[in-house]
Amino acid sequence: MLDKVKNIVWDKDFDIFSLFDKEKEKVHPAELAQAIESIPFKYALASFSKLDYETQVYTFPYLDILLQHKLVRNLSQQCTSHLLNNLSSDERISFFSDLSHLERAVYINYLDEENRRETQNFLGYSENSVARLIDTDYATIFQDMTVAEASQHLRENHKDTEAANVIYVVDEDGKLIDDIQVRRLVLNAPEKKISDIMDGDFVSLNISDTQETAIQKFKDYDRVVIPVVNEGNMLLGVITIDDIMDVVEQKETEEIQKFGGVEKLDFPYVKTGFFKLTEKRATWLIILFLGEMLTATAMGYFEHEISQAVVLALFVPLIISSGGNSGSQAATLIIRALALKELTIKDWWFVMRREILSGVTLGVILGSIGFLRITIWQQLGWYDYGEHWFLIALTVFCSLIGIILWGTLTGSMIPIILKKYDIDPATSSAPFVATLVDVTGLIIYFTIAAVILKGTLL
Amino acid sequence: MLDKVKNIVWDKDFDIFSLFDKEKEKVHPAELAQAIESIPFKYALASFSKLDYETQVYTFPYLDILLQHKLVRNLSQQCTSHLLNNLSSDERISFFSDLSHLERAVYINYLDEENRRETQNFLGYSENSVARLIDTDYATIFQDMTVAEASQHLRENHKDTEAANVIYVVDEDGKLIDDIQVRRLVLNAPEKKISDIMDGDFVSLNISDTQETAIQKFKDYDRVVIPVVNEGNMLLGVITIDDIMDVVEQKETEEIQKFGGVEKLDFPYVKTGFFKLTEKRATWLIILFLGEMLTATAMGYFEHEISQAVVLALFVPLIISSGGNSGSQAATLIIRALALKELTIKDWWFVMRREILSGVTLGVILGSIGFLRITIWQQLGWYDYGEHWFLIALTVFCSLIGIILWGTLTGSMIPIILKKYDIDPATSSAPFVATLVDVTGLIIYFTIAAVILKGTLL
Repeated sequence: MLDKVKNIVWDKDFDIFSLFDKEKEKVHPAELAQAIESIPFKYALASFSKLDYETQVYTFPYLDILLQHKLVRNLSQQCTSHLLNNLSSDERISFFSDLSHLERAVYINYLDEENRRETQNFLGYSENSVARLIDTDYATIFQDMTVAEASQHLRENHKDTEAANVIYVVDEDGKLIDDIQVRRLVLNAPEKKISDIMDGDFVSLNISDTQETAIQKFKDYDRVVIPVVNEGNMLLGVITIDDIMDVVEQKETEEIQKFGGVEKLDFPYVKTGFFKLTEKRATWLIILFLGEMLTATAMGYFEHEISQAVVLALFVPLIISSGGNSGSQAATLIIRALALKELTIKDWWFVMRREILSGVTLGVILGSIGFLRITIWQQLGWYDYGEHWFLIALTVFCSLIGIILWGTLTGSMIPIILKKYDIDPATSSAPFVATLVDVTGLIIYFTIAAVILKGTLL
Repeated sequence: MLDKVKNIVWDKDFDIFSLFDKEKEKVHPAELAQAIESIPFKYALASFSKLDYETQVYTFPYLDILLQHKLVRNLSQQCTSHLLNNLSSDERISFFSDLSHLERAVYINYLDEENRRETQNFLGYSENSVARLIDTDYATIFQDMTVAEASQHLRENHKDTEAANVIYVVDEDGKLIDDIQVRRLVLNAPEKKISDIMDGDFVSLNISDTQETAIQKFKDYDRVVIPVVNEGNMLLGVITIDDIMDVVEQKETEEIQKFGGVEKLDFPYVKTGFFKLTEKRATWLIILFLGEMLTATAMGYFEHEISQAVVLALFVPLIISSGGNSGSQAATLIIRALALKELTIKDWWFVMRREILSGVTLGVILGSIGFLRITIWQQLGWYDYGEHWFLIALTVFCSLIGIILWGTLTGSMIPIILKKYDIDPATSSAPFVATLVDVTGLIIYFTIAAVILKGTLL
């Protein structure tokens, strides 16, 4: 399709369906959305406006959020009003969630009264609550109906949408009693009572639950849709797995960006403006830089030692980076294990014992390599570390053990400590751990050097 | 529940259901599995054995894979045979996938002939193919049936399982014609023909497609189940979204671990043995250490300069770590954008221009801070950088710009280059980028120092 885009004659008769090899009717809304995203905005707008209202409603949710906003700002008021009123409630809330407050106030007036009240209500919940994902299009039946009556009821009252895949049994007050997979209405004899095919086993979410709780429930119970109720167990709507998958992806992205030492981006890399992007990176980079300045201070204290044994300076990058690397590794493992709930903060002692053992083992391995490096270079005459080369090799060996142990300990404990104080463990990013270990690592290195080289080089 | 576990009297009459506050029948298999995982293995085995066969089959898939293996090794042959034969095909394949080849050969004989043939067939496909996720329990109808006939057919031929949520219309040869949500059988009048309620719009996967392709299709089309066909369009089974969510989580974990500089773990952190864990970490740590040794070599070349101007050594950690941090940031952003398909390798030039601009901007910001640091400390008498402090400050300023620019460029381009050669971009981990930038950063720093300080300090 993208190849076709290149050969388009851009004129006012441009037809978006000319990009497809199949009939207009067979084009999936997702494909149509992809096509609209791939052409210049002017033509995207014209193409979208030309679609019939129904196709607009189906296609809109597949467009990326920035294009959604841009389109709405340019469509006729009538068109926008129809569109926004006919989106499913979760799509509508998602659209409004990402608008500025000013624009929100404008477009909310395009909604009819019921939609407006509903949207305002859900926008009142926190951005991280399930209210922001709720779909209020759901199908209900009563338990004293027969299967045939229930089917009849659904045919008369419900559209053919995803929402009808699971049917909710409610009482006269709208309180949730059970959920029933719609297949049960097919697989059970028409004369059976709904109450006889209920299993009383359902999972629900509260409207004020966080999205993390929702993700966990979807995973734990392998559901594709979970009903949402209020404090009084009144059914308010449903959450569907496609929205949950989007949330999971978004949270993973934030987590990864945090871990890489970037503030979370609100939009994809390619859609984030240059200044915004630089700002998001500069903040952490400056904080880390200020922290790392302490290395200059620390080194300053040891200037005398360095001037007496310049050879010590040669190993500074090697030694501090090893601490940083082992710290990043440990942090990665622990942050992920915490995120997947494989570990909780109660396991800190288990983690600590393990990481001390790991740190020492890894330290001895790398320390030995370092020791050998110096010995071999010295013996083969590739570099002259002076008459006290053995003591220098010993200093490097001991320092590496100390620093790698310190790195793994820091890297593994900081995420747990952050978690304890309800800060996202991923904040202890690889660069953050590395910086912390750099400063302390220098002190470890020069202290060990002072002890071992006292009376010889120092 | 975990609190209750602490107070258990462990004896042979131990009843797993005593851990729950509700009736036996109301305990969800997922909860039962959690309970079984939380008690000592001896009692887990006894509790699982005591369950009736049907409950065993429902509960088993919720147990973690290591416990699944351990249980099967200890259950009676009759029990194991019933269990393995009655698992859904995707659960069965998942169980066999993770077994050693030796054990696979043993347990495959517990299967009846049809299950054995099917399992062997799917295990023949690559570990990353959709064949390893396929569920062969699906429901089919023919297009000349009426809705009532189709419902009758399903009632007679299908169990009440997740698989019946989407019904597949096939021809006499078993070739896939369309998919129909089971709700349509409820929402359409019983006398309608199936061919009239078909929309001819379906998405399918090929049995040899990769799991990445599957993930993409689920996302693009917002599906909860997608049929799998062979080359001849014969329907072979279905893939369900819960399996896809597990795959997504697992791939994210691998991605994150790689990025943190750890080889991917086959099992969760807490379940990976100490030696395995250390080995997975040591490999990368040693590679990085060997790379980082070049810093000692590079510093060796500048030993003369350092001995003449020890003050230069003080800023080494600050300068190289800034390069490493900016590189990690860039790598994080680009790796994630590539993974989410927001970027492709064709965009390299767009990325490069952007990162050059970012690098210079960030470099000037950090460079200025560095310059000010030296100036202020010197002026206030907190540290004496000697009479040429201004030239040193200038060296630090210029070096930071050079190194941060180099860091962002390296961090952003390496993932794209790796992708071009079909290597997972996440291999360019934060520690990897940092190491690379450290070595080259030193050369940049000392070269700039040589130019600026020539004739004064050097």
